[in-house]
Amino acid sequence: MPEEKSYHMTPSEFRRLGHAAIDWVADYYERVESLPVLSRVRPGDIRATLPARPPERGEPFEAVLKDLSELILPGITHWQSPNFFAYFPANASGPAILGDLISSGFGVQGMLWSTSPACTELETHVLDWMAEMLDLPQRFRSTGSGGGAIQDSASSAALCALIAARERATGLASNERGCDGRLTAYTSSQAHSSIEKGAKVAGVGRANLRLIDVDATLAMRPEQLAQQIDEDRRAGHIPFFAAATIGTTSSNGIDPIRAIGRICREQGLWLHVDGAMAGTAALCPEFRHLQDGLELADSYCFNPHKWMFTNFDCDCFYVADRKALIQALSILPEYLRNQATESGAVIDYRDWQIPLGRRFRALKLWLVIRHYGVEGLRYHVRRHVDLAQEFARWVQAAPRFELAVKPPLNLVCFRHRGGDDLNQALMDRLNGSGDLFLTHTRLQDRLTLRMCVGQTQTERRHVERAWRRICEVADDLERG
Amino acid sequence: MPEEKSYHMTPSEFRRLGHAAIDWVADYYERVESLPVLSRVRPGDIRATLPARPPERGEPFEAVLKDLSELILPGITHWQSPNFFAYFPANASGPAILGDLISSGFGVQGMLWSTSPACTELETHVLDWMAEMLDLPQRFRSTGSGGGAIQDSASSAALCALIAARERATGLASNERGCDGRLTAYTSSQAHSSIEKGAKVAGVGRANLRLIDVDATLAMRPEQLAQQIDEDRRAGHIPFFAAATIGTTSSNGIDPIRAIGRICREQGLWLHVDGAMAGTAALCPEFRHLQDGLELADSYCFNPHKWMFTNFDCDCFYVADRKALIQALSILPEYLRNQATESGAVIDYRDWQIPLGRRFRALKLWLVIRHYGVEGLRYHVRRHVDLAQEFARWVQAAPRFELAVKPPLNLVCFRHRGGDDLNQALMDRLNGSGDLFLTHTRLQDRLTLRMCVGQTQTERRHVERAWRRICEVADDLERG
Repeated sequence: MPEEKSYHMTPSEFRRLGHAAIDWVADYYERVESLPVLSRVRPGDIRATLPARPPERGEPFEAVLKDLSELILPGITHWQSPNFFAYFPANASGPAILGDLISSGFGVQGMLWSTSPACTELETHVLDWMAEMLDLPQRFRSTGSGGGAIQDSASSAALCALIAARERATGLASNERGCDGRLTAYTSSQAHSSIEKGAKVAGVGRANLRLIDVDATLAMRPEQLAQQIDEDRRAGHIPFFAAATIGTTSSNGIDPIRAIGRICREQGLWLHVDGAMAGTAALCPEFRHLQDGLELADSYCFNPHKWMFTNFDCDCFYVADRKALIQALSILPEYLRNQATESGAVIDYRDWQIPLGRRFRALKLWLVIRHYGVEGLRYHVRRHVDLAQEFARWVQAAPRFELAVKPPLNLVCFRHRGGDDLNQALMDRLNGSGDLFLTHTRLQDRLTLRMCVGQTQTERRHVERAWRRICEVADDLERG
Repeated sequence: MPEEKSYHMTPSEFRRLGHAAIDWVADYYERVESLPVLSRVRPGDIRATLPARPPERGEPFEAVLKDLSELILPGITHWQSPNFFAYFPANASGPAILGDLISSGFGVQGMLWSTSPACTELETHVLDWMAEMLDLPQRFRSTGSGGGAIQDSASSAALCALIAARERATGLASNERGCDGRLTAYTSSQAHSSIEKGAKVAGVGRANLRLIDVDATLAMRPEQLAQQIDEDRRAGHIPFFAAATIGTTSSNGIDPIRAIGRICREQGLWLHVDGAMAGTAALCPEFRHLQDGLELADSYCFNPHKWMFTNFDCDCFYVADRKALIQALSILPEYLRNQATESGAVIDYRDWQIPLGRRFRALKLWLVIRHYGVEGLRYHVRRHVDLAQEFARWVQAAPRFELAVKPPLNLVCFRHRGGDDLNQALMDRLNGSGDLFLTHTRLQDRLTLRMCVGQTQTERRHVERAWRRICEVADDLERG
């Protein structure tokens, strides 16, 4: 039979070019430490280097690798640099990258159990493993009434929780007839912006999301929550949902989950807990007190793609009552009907998320857990916390600097005592130097620098050097 | 300086194990044709083979590769098999897999321009390329008032369009105070389930989504749309959004975009057009008539991850007025503030989507376009359409079979004239054989088989063999 014409990459070409791509990535990791962390390009610089029109004919892969190095690399802010201390980490690792590679190779859709049973079952299994590793309450495991699914982000997890809560509170009437403006939701003034975005997307409305005051540690005040719920009920609203945070984005503030959980139970609110970065700390028994009371929550999420060496996207989302989630999000058009679904013996993850399609994301998490073992993951999490705590001690010992809050884990919020302008200049100079990358927040109405230790390759020497550079630039700025 | 203890995979280990992983994937592609397409495992089979508890200590990568072959592979339904004709394709390719690999290596977050300028600019650029390749209206390009962004799926694209439309119709009041149950949306009875799911998620409500009747070709009847909008207005509702489809999931029905667009313009509705699979056909000038009238749409999406050799997830989502989208979805907490954003000179894709975080997905699309060139992509799309049309002619020539509808492109909906039970048995036997995988829908209230030709490795011989097997199994079943 004559071969058909084909533009496809053959398996043997894939083998050769794949090795070249792996080498490119390995080379990148060998030199990433030497690259300026924050990209220095200006708006439009990258586009200006690219051909205006798409290529009519195919080009060799080698040309692409060359462009990656010459055109794309200058526009990269190096999240995988050991000198990246900005935002929250998004720490990648070898096993996670290879897990994703194999997932791309399979190219399966995991929307239904039947569209690739292993994609669903490995996910359920590994999320049960994670629940054990973090000592999460039994109710979040698939062996009981709950279970876990991988979402793309904590934003999407919060939205799913919000929808499930909305439908539980309205007896599925919101799904059927739409929202009516009476539902009210609660979170702290320090919660992540995704809660507000979720309230908007879900038709609840920003004004119906109450931002509860925080205490000096930037944790939600439960008595204020209780009081606001009472007021809303008296005013004819329907309180239905609260979101608490273990480790806020701004400052790693830890909401008191048990006290909030008790109020939510009494008042019949769905409690969602967001442990996006800090949740990973529960790998270590000594940090589990941060999640005390989690058995009172209806849903929980944390992100291995932040601080557990698992490439984005990998948010582990758990619910205590999977039926409530599935009822809120399920669809079953004729073209997706199949015997396994109708038997009721399987999980169809399409009903645990907003989109229909889904990748085989459990593979990378499975590879990470198997590569590091629980022991290795614990070691690195403890190491990051130790380094951050040591950095905090350096800050405290320097009279011209101060801590904004006592750091519970791996995020240090600090500032120079010289005021906002000096801190802004300090940050801009440091980031402009390329030696490290820090970001900021506002705490106590003052510009505050955030030093988050969590990148895979970060070692003691990088944290030491960061502190040295901070002091040197402060010296310069003080001289004026 | 003493080396710190580390459990991480070093770059040199990554190089060695990465080559092994690439070889594993190459080997997989060499043998995927010989594997039963639909996995044969029963519910629970995969989990039963996995250790109940996570490993305390790390394990060698080789052990994982062995488990992949022995434990995971039997649970895979092979979407990348040339004998996969089910659902819609999700066709992967070498350049896309390697693009994803490099994206995993960079491990950057593209939520803001400043968090990796190349991630944003390459995406904007490649989406402009795609707009040119498909001859999309100028208004969808970033050089005008619009622009494109990659979403995970057409479901998420539809939800973003729905939210933007909702806010445009209510002057941002829904975001602020929540929905009030008066908004009504429109789509055809044949539209994808994601439109209904979006209406629920967005607080509009299923009952406020009108499913407009279709004609004999399963295309929306525009006059029915106009009539329903009138009725709703008279009843005090606020019609705000319509979703039309180029290539429905069930049967590849093509809604008349121009006629629907005129009505939406007159009535002030946001028109979203979903070209998830069939949109790719517009690479070829001879198929562009299917998108006639698209300049009347407010948003459009199609999925290179279905039929353009680009691994999931890659939905290209275009809007004509990017301000409307950004206003509806934007958030700006202090910890994300930065000079580039405040200058207004850049795109921050966080405001074009539901989640905050995002991967560097443009890389894989860029690699696909550069590998194939427009020429190569056109060749393979035409080839798939030709093969499907040839299959349709075989069906028509066989008296015991019939076409349910005339296939416009690469999806053939057909059935044996022997009734639902026979067709169900035919499908079950074929899928159980492992030789091919087909799925079904219901058309004209009869069970209908769907044969979708679109997998990367599918050649003429696979389509011929599928038809031969269909005829053989039909022979068997007719004999009873």
